[in-house]
Amino acid sequence: MEAEATRIMIGVNESTINGYPNASISSRRAFEWTLSKIVRSNTRGFKLLFLHVQVPDEDGFDDMDSIYASPDDFRNLKYRERARGIHLLEYFVNRCHQIGVACEAWIKKGDPKEVICHEVKRVQPDLLVVGCRGLGPFQRVFVGTVSEFCQKHAECPVLSIKRSADETPQDPVDD
Amino acid sequence: MEAEATRIMIGVNESTINGYPNASISSRRAFEWTLSKIVRSNTRGFKLLFLHVQVPDEDGFDDMDSIYASPDDFRNLKYRERARGIHLLEYFVNRCHQIGVACEAWIKKGDPKEVICHEVKRVQPDLLVVGCRGLGPFQRVFVGTVSEFCQKHAECPVLSIKRSADETPQDPVDD
Repeated sequence: MEAEATRIMIGVNESTINGYPNASISSRRAFEWTLSKIVRSNTRGFKLLFLHVQVPDEDGFDDMDSIYASPDDFRNLKYRERARGIHLLEYFVNRCHQIGVACEAWIKKGDPKEVICHEVKRVQPDLLVVGCRGLGPFQRVFVGTVSEFCQKHAECPVLSIKRSADETPQDPVDD
Repeated sequence: MEAEATRIMIGVNESTINGYPNASISSRRAFEWTLSKIVRSNTRGFKLLFLHVQVPDEDGFDDMDSIYASPDDFRNLKYRERARGIHLLEYFVNRCHQIGVACEAWIKKGDPKEVICHEVKRVQPDLLVVGCRGLGPFQRVFVGTVSEFCQKHAECPVLSIKRSADETPQDPVDD
């Protein structure tokens, strides 16, 4: 009989190129890497925990053309954003069910790097896997990287998985 | 039928407290973590590659009381040091054989962080696992950490495994 399943948390986000409900290239890569290199055929030995952190839209840019006439409009807005996150997670949960790996998925709001570390503390996974774009030092200064922050601050082992070279879009800041 | 085994390179070194042939606390921890959290019961899905980097003894401190009378004395010295490294690796290889995980182990000389990254480039493992002492920022400045260097420079995903709190010796720089 095997010990309790190894719980792997994977941070996933939406594509900056294609938007919701598409997962970013680096999220998908982190997920597929985990399946092929760690989980392999031992689907019962692992449980995947998908965390999607939604960044609050401080500029309200997404809603430039919206007209707000009643409190319901705001509620609808929140619902719509939540629905997008749920569609994103659906992709990962569906894949897991096809393969037969146990999983859980949930959404939080906030600064991704801080929320991820906070959730690691709360959920205590055995391993955190985050995708990363593999940016150079110059690009990193402006973009910041969630993976570097998690490497330093998350209270569990952290694995950063870079996109493969042939999947990197023309502008490497895109994902 | 399963795909080719996932090849995990593990950097291992000797204990600074107990010396050869004892493995450091963090090496053993990295190894045991990999077995219990990644390999689990799927022993045929993985191959472990143990790399031990010996630091050239620039001060010659170990040989303070040695008397060199012939070229053979030097050859013996080299042989002795090599033998110590081999004894260190024996521990890991024996454990793998007991469990039934395929493995390879070898010794290189040089600066551990650079040699590890060089060997990653040459051997191309799927994953590099290194133990780390979990030093605070103050201690790190003086001691330097192999794991941070590898996180940045190794050409494969890198996993740093910290010692557990109850295994940390009184002086955390010891290992």
